[in-house]
Amino acid sequence: MADYQKTKINTVRRGSKKAKYNKDTVHSILDAVEICHIAFIVDGKPFVQPINFGRKDGFLYLHGSPKNRMTNALIESGKATLSVTIIDAMKLTKSAFNHSVNYRSAVVFGKVRELHTNEEKLEGLKAIINHFVPERWEHCRRPDKDELLATRVLEIEIETASAKIADTPLEDKERDLELDYWSGIIPVETNYRDPISTKNSNSPPEHVLDFCKKN
Amino acid sequence: MADYQKTKINTVRRGSKKAKYNKDTVHSILDAVEICHIAFIVDGKPFVQPINFGRKDGFLYLHGSPKNRMTNALIESGKATLSVTIIDAMKLTKSAFNHSVNYRSAVVFGKVRELHTNEEKLEGLKAIINHFVPERWEHCRRPDKDELLATRVLEIEIETASAKIADTPLEDKERDLELDYWSGIIPVETNYRDPISTKNSNSPPEHVLDFCKKN
Repeated sequence: MADYQKTKINTVRRGSKKAKYNKDTVHSILDAVEICHIAFIVDGKPFVQPINFGRKDGFLYLHGSPKNRMTNALIESGKATLSVTIIDAMKLTKSAFNHSVNYRSAVVFGKVRELHTNEEKLEGLKAIINHFVPERWEHCRRPDKDELLATRVLEIEIETASAKIADTPLEDKERDLELDYWSGIIPVETNYRDPISTKNSNSPPEHVLDFCKKN
Repeated sequence: MADYQKTKINTVRRGSKKAKYNKDTVHSILDAVEICHIAFIVDGKPFVQPINFGRKDGFLYLHGSPKNRMTNALIESGKATLSVTIIDAMKLTKSAFNHSVNYRSAVVFGKVRELHTNEEKLEGLKAIINHFVPERWEHCRRPDKDELLATRVLEIEIETASAKIADTPLEDKERDLELDYWSGIIPVETNYRDPISTKNSNSPPEHVLDFCKKN
């Protein structure tokens, strides 16, 4: 798949060797997490908050209550910036200065459009639910008219994006090698534990068991 | 410990039953994560990116290269907004609409000051390293003059903040109880695996082993 275009806003300046603009790479990082952190401006001040989301090709989907400050700010500005980050390892070097993490992160800059028809809103919510747990939409009750009325659904067309991947081994500086401090890596994992069924449910279905295996 | 003052910007509007303003609660969520997502404005546009940080009482510490766009934007504006989020469980209800997560999140609004003396910068970096892994600062080489020159250290005085904690059991709506869909909870954990020593190190010291036990 092609790259997201490098523009002034998405070009990675610090650690540019780690930068990736490939769409597949950006999408795979977005798909590996439950939530993103989204930035918006209210009264000239920057805000940031966590929110779940969905993705379909180069489009992301969010939903929020009609009274939500974030939803309103995004619609009003027509622009969205969001970021996701996964920590894969902590790198503890012999010097304080060189401590770092291996991580995968993505930043997305997009154009916001509110979805108004029930058909469009359902497609957006389907993307969100299936991003949460793949195939989940096919295994739960769909929203009815009242529920659709109670939520606003936003589509973000990804205009540009970047990813950063740090996955290198730890390297102490030459000057530190002989110091009597410990250096090493602590791997970090997100683990999904065995699902706990409610009393009104039978044993977990395959789409849930598959999801829990992902790490 | 006292609460952070509720003001127009930090008062939680959506899901206000989950809101906490207690300083201990906010600090414990900040201390449980490796990175935050920080929002800033450049040329009128909102940006958000991940960054590691430290905390000492009601102050947070960040560091960045002198050329870093974020560092410069934060110093110029004098204000910082940042957010951290921990997902504890995914709640899969019988209806699409009621899916949610149990989580702990915090949002901080603060005043930014750059630290200039080597003494102040070292205190800030110590907070960052000991937030990464407690007691780490005492077990690695401290930054020298050249390293201090190569990094800018920012102090964020927390002016106000809020936390949100969702930790309730899953509840399907009455109308959905008899539907033949599965509902249940998937617990989510961040796990720290056994540390991997570099070839120039002996077995991991106690502060590292203690850290890895934290989940």
